[in-house]
Amino acid sequence: MSDTLGIALVGCGTVGTGVARVLLAHAERIAQRAGRPLALRRIVVQNLNKPRDAIIPRELLSTDIAAAIHDPAVQVVVELIGGTGIAKTVVLEALTAGKHVVTANKALLADCGGEIFEAARQAERTVCFEAAVAGGVPIIRALGESLAANQVTAIQAILNGTSNFILTAMAERNLSYTAALAEAQQLGYAEADPTLDVDGSDAAHKLAILAQISFGVAAKPHEIARQGIETIDPMDIRFAHELGYTIKLLAEAWTSTRTPNGERGMRGGGLDTTLSNSGLHPAAPHRPTAEKAVALHVAPVLLRHTDLLAQVRGAYNAVLVYGDIVGETLYQGPGAGQMPTASSVVADLIDLAVGRAQRTFAAAKLWSREGRGFTVEPPERVRSRFYLRLLVADKPGVLADITRILADEQISISSLVQHEAAEDNGGPVPLVIVTHYAATGRFRRAIERINALRTVAAPAVFFSMGD
Amino acid sequence: MSDTLGIALVGCGTVGTGVARVLLAHAERIAQRAGRPLALRRIVVQNLNKPRDAIIPRELLSTDIAAAIHDPAVQVVVELIGGTGIAKTVVLEALTAGKHVVTANKALLADCGGEIFEAARQAERTVCFEAAVAGGVPIIRALGESLAANQVTAIQAILNGTSNFILTAMAERNLSYTAALAEAQQLGYAEADPTLDVDGSDAAHKLAILAQISFGVAAKPHEIARQGIETIDPMDIRFAHELGYTIKLLAEAWTSTRTPNGERGMRGGGLDTTLSNSGLHPAAPHRPTAEKAVALHVAPVLLRHTDLLAQVRGAYNAVLVYGDIVGETLYQGPGAGQMPTASSVVADLIDLAVGRAQRTFAAAKLWSREGRGFTVEPPERVRSRFYLRLLVADKPGVLADITRILADEQISISSLVQHEAAEDNGGPVPLVIVTHYAATGRFRRAIERINALRTVAAPAVFFSMGD
Repeated sequence: MSDTLGIALVGCGTVGTGVARVLLAHAERIAQRAGRPLALRRIVVQNLNKPRDAIIPRELLSTDIAAAIHDPAVQVVVELIGGTGIAKTVVLEALTAGKHVVTANKALLADCGGEIFEAARQAERTVCFEAAVAGGVPIIRALGESLAANQVTAIQAILNGTSNFILTAMAERNLSYTAALAEAQQLGYAEADPTLDVDGSDAAHKLAILAQISFGVAAKPHEIARQGIETIDPMDIRFAHELGYTIKLLAEAWTSTRTPNGERGMRGGGLDTTLSNSGLHPAAPHRPTAEKAVALHVAPVLLRHTDLLAQVRGAYNAVLVYGDIVGETLYQGPGAGQMPTASSVVADLIDLAVGRAQRTFAAAKLWSREGRGFTVEPPERVRSRFYLRLLVADKPGVLADITRILADEQISISSLVQHEAAEDNGGPVPLVIVTHYAATGRFRRAIERINALRTVAAPAVFFSMGD
Repeated sequence: MSDTLGIALVGCGTVGTGVARVLLAHAERIAQRAGRPLALRRIVVQNLNKPRDAIIPRELLSTDIAAAIHDPAVQVVVELIGGTGIAKTVVLEALTAGKHVVTANKALLADCGGEIFEAARQAERTVCFEAAVAGGVPIIRALGESLAANQVTAIQAILNGTSNFILTAMAERNLSYTAALAEAQQLGYAEADPTLDVDGSDAAHKLAILAQISFGVAAKPHEIARQGIETIDPMDIRFAHELGYTIKLLAEAWTSTRTPNGERGMRGGGLDTTLSNSGLHPAAPHRPTAEKAVALHVAPVLLRHTDLLAQVRGAYNAVLVYGDIVGETLYQGPGAGQMPTASSVVADLIDLAVGRAQRTFAAAKLWSREGRGFTVEPPERVRSRFYLRLLVADKPGVLADITRILADEQISISSLVQHEAAEDNGGPVPLVIVTHYAATGRFRRAIERINALRTVAAPAVFFSMGD
């Protein structure tokens, strides 16, 4: 048929196989939804001899990327290689050859979005990427289309299923980090090398993409402050639980627009617009916080058990978006996996077939010079309550020293937990302090002084609180 | 500007004022997102002298509907009158006059969708209705675009914020139904006459629309079985709580595709394909359940405290969608209110300006003869576990009679709660039985026999369970 949309898959691992499965097993359904047939023309792989799912037609397989890109019967190249090496070449060449691109590659967009989108605009072609953030959760469409009337004022998101699985297992089944990670690996939720998942890098990539759509800022992932879950002590999960909180790895964006205080899990503080940079970032010049500023970070956060995001268990992802008109909306679902990711890739293909995607691409002007006037501010400006856990000597005067330092930084204490030592062996005992709102920068300054106290036995452990 | 999209608002109550506010206060933002300016040209009201929000420009106000519809500077008519009377005339005339239509009118679409969409196709114009279901939650786009690769296999949704507010207040603060309703009315969550909200009619309208998008069925709202919350006894909320459950008013769609058993709150049973109609609907001929069948109903359902929908509190809406490719995704947010609803209306206007909405409308073929092959089945076929609460005489043999009847219908008992009577006054005592899976029809047949027992003091109270 002349109006068939021809598709080349480049990369046929787990997700690629899923996409092929949907296109082949549900061809009639997809054609009905798209208004015309979608035909899988070519599948490019590295190794022709690798055993593959029976649904993959052998005759479509080849190792020839260029042939797939330049096939006149192909209108869309689906890039599922991953990374920023050969994947980048494939995407740029496909655009130059006049093909639309669908990709699930978060690293490529976060690192090279500007270059790729500029190439797409030059070639008058479209790049779609629903699968790049939160797998099967349609957060790209939500931010770009459904919430188009809004300026997003804050985002709080669980974007790494591996970390959420591990934290859920630690909290609900008292597993150690090591045991929970091993289970995640056994179940296929974590890679052999889980570093990018558990250190917050993966979530930072995804946050960079959400921040581009929501604020027009092109934050490089390595510039996004992040703290992972590798060093979370089970002791802190227990203390948090005792206080009524759950620890989640969150990717967050906060603007200087204050959200209604106490509004269902949104931090009320916004950004501290009075705090100077000096002392926080010695290299940065002192400057006032811009009116349209956004702070981005990835970190473990304590959420009240009743918060929506605290309920998100296992490998699920969830994104809580605060819009200035709609208020708070939540999007939740499987954040990874073969079929959820394939669902998003095929939704993009249908959008291209219908012609929606091209219009969205042209209107959104992502990664263009036309920003939205937002500047990226250091997360030191985010106002938050804090959970602080210390190991301190069981001696008179210790508490006085610590509370004096907090008072010096004008940080007031909301609650304090110190259990009687289990054995009176003179060893250090844990002390947990929950503060009222304070700018992160001020709090960190206090922590530096507290860590220098002779009576503090180990570096302070601290997390933001989600309320 | 020649490429300006001209808009007429017909109806300027709460939502209309919100839409005007967004278009006027955020004109620059909206133009940037839409790629061209959106201009509010006319506002049609019933009463010119009614006091209005200061943002409403007096010079745009008029009572002349026809002038607004036929103004050549107007390309889109936003219908915010509500109901199926004059609103229907406005929509049909606007389409005939060559205008696109944006509406938040659930009743109009649920009752007259076929006629309106046929008129739109004739006129080659588009009808948008994101605001008609779940207010600010973008569920229309999610089902129609984001999940386009999927066949939806089940929907469980909280679509009536008033009922959810009342149930939350009853469960969390032990209020009576009357007190909770009075509070909802005072806070503006409930109308002076709350009937359509609390009897499930409003949710049935919205479910009919979701069922059209997901299954291509044109179920009339009055054909959707529904049970409201007006008669829920605080006793049942307490018993449910004791068993670990929360009662929510759900709008549900179940297909014969079995969802993974026990999968995060989705009922595992699907439809009973063996059950005959005879005896359930005496008027209906006996027929086997079609392969592609969907059952729709609105009813209070017991959800485990840990279920995603059980966490939805107050006036919020949430829709849990099960897709055959993506699995389960959840969409949650404010289900009503001025600005959330305005957010959805303006998103539709931006989609029209960008040209997305026209393509979606043409591709989706909603309310057309081109269905998806689904038939609507009676909810009697839905398999479910049941909560059954009886008031029974405190006498020997009572339990034997009841359990015998259940056994006759091959319904097995999962758990049973009978507390010692507070006062041994010989009066009836509550007896709570939780069953294993059974088809609703079989269960209802058992209930009829149980209600006929002389030892049963009041008609049985029963609800489906969400797991």
